[in-house]
Amino acid sequence: MNPLDNIRVVLVGTLYSGNVGSVCRAMANMGLRNLTLVAPRILDDWSDGARMAVHAVDLMNARREVATLEEAVADCVAVVGTTARGGLYRATVQTPRVIVPELLRLATQGPVAIVFGREDQGLHNDEIAHCTHLIRIPVDEQYQSLNLSQALLIVAYELYTATGTYVSPVEEADSLADQAMKNALMAKWRKAMLDIGFMEEPKADHMMQGFRRIFSRGVKTVPDARIMMGAAHQMSWAGETARQNDLTASESK
Amino acid sequence: MNPLDNIRVVLVGTLYSGNVGSVCRAMANMGLRNLTLVAPRILDDWSDGARMAVHAVDLMNARREVATLEEAVADCVAVVGTTARGGLYRATVQTPRVIVPELLRLATQGPVAIVFGREDQGLHNDEIAHCTHLIRIPVDEQYQSLNLSQALLIVAYELYTATGTYVSPVEEADSLADQAMKNALMAKWRKAMLDIGFMEEPKADHMMQGFRRIFSRGVKTVPDARIMMGAAHQMSWAGETARQNDLTASESK
Repeated sequence: MNPLDNIRVVLVGTLYSGNVGSVCRAMANMGLRNLTLVAPRILDDWSDGARMAVHAVDLMNARREVATLEEAVADCVAVVGTTARGGLYRATVQTPRVIVPELLRLATQGPVAIVFGREDQGLHNDEIAHCTHLIRIPVDEQYQSLNLSQALLIVAYELYTATGTYVSPVEEADSLADQAMKNALMAKWRKAMLDIGFMEEPKADHMMQGFRRIFSRGVKTVPDARIMMGAAHQMSWAGETARQNDLTASESK
Repeated sequence: MNPLDNIRVVLVGTLYSGNVGSVCRAMANMGLRNLTLVAPRILDDWSDGARMAVHAVDLMNARREVATLEEAVADCVAVVGTTARGGLYRATVQTPRVIVPELLRLATQGPVAIVFGREDQGLHNDEIAHCTHLIRIPVDEQYQSLNLSQALLIVAYELYTATGTYVSPVEEADSLADQAMKNALMAKWRKAMLDIGFMEEPKADHMMQGFRRIFSRGVKTVPDARIMMGAAHQMSWAGETARQNDLTASESK
């Protein structure tokens, strides 16, 4: 099963529907589907919510609304509170990155709630008491106040990336050039540099060290090597032709 | 030096000031300070921007505005483009997590630009051509469209956490209970369970295995052990007293 299907996002006492909408969009981006609002205090007419949710508006409309946190998490096997501040009952906090493997394991056994508090007040101490785990999102100490949907996004992103579901596109779509091909390029380039008169034999090896540094970083794939070899070939032609023209010109003087 | 000071956030052709404001707030949360807008196309009167920026409004007002991406990144030692889609020139992409160590190293040597495109069009191919690196943020394939400020937040969060600047509060503020203390608790608990009549000697060790599982997970610190030992002490008193009362009652019958 997909453990993300057992992750339940719980928002307590939310004031702004725009935040709910942004939360829904971030949830959809990160493969989460279950939203519960506890005693929402929405001040507006929900038009902001629909606007910010964009294509995740179905997720928003499918939300569950309950009166208490206790009700929201009664069937959960873990309840993860998010807290920005320290304090007597908030000392045992972990970062999202560290905790997500455990949460995903727990989510294979039952619903796991991730609980976010009010924009203005966070979670109250009696709500913290319902939590089996507490997390705190790393933020710069100069500006610690994270927007609600941005806090959710970070936790959701850590959960999503920890599942290993996202497969990065192959880093190089083309095959890598092997050492033989790179050596062949170096030989062609060396010849080309001599042909165009950029360097002369006694110093050639020294100059080639400079080119080797650049090419060792820059030339990675077969197409990379081919384009440079093609250019080197043409440089050699130009150089040889220029020398012949020079000779011809000299001869005709 | 702090490499984050050399990270330059560049937004190309932005339509909504609310996104700029949210970007600024996310930047402030993650210790970034430098914002450049390239040919902004802001449709509104910037009031959304100020509202979404909250305390990061100074960062927003300090932004640089230029006409072209070339101008925005001329002095940069690396230019990191963000792209949601694949395509001919966009094949070589990495995830933010994988690339940030390299970006932080480069940032000790000069400005590193992180470039985000238009809400409606992303970055154009000629802008991708200016990039030394490309990143793609992991998102669920069902809903790939990330809000601009949320995309920025993820990259900024990866940069910030990779610096190791954020120090998680000590996981346990109290000292951990050592094995001797835990054994002492187990002994007191065993006695208490016998005293209250919860178990009897032949099965006592078997029952204690059940308690050991719970305590090995739950009792971690010295205060944890002390509160349980205190409770066990009281259980023993209650159990012993109850038995005496029982005996007295029997005797007086």
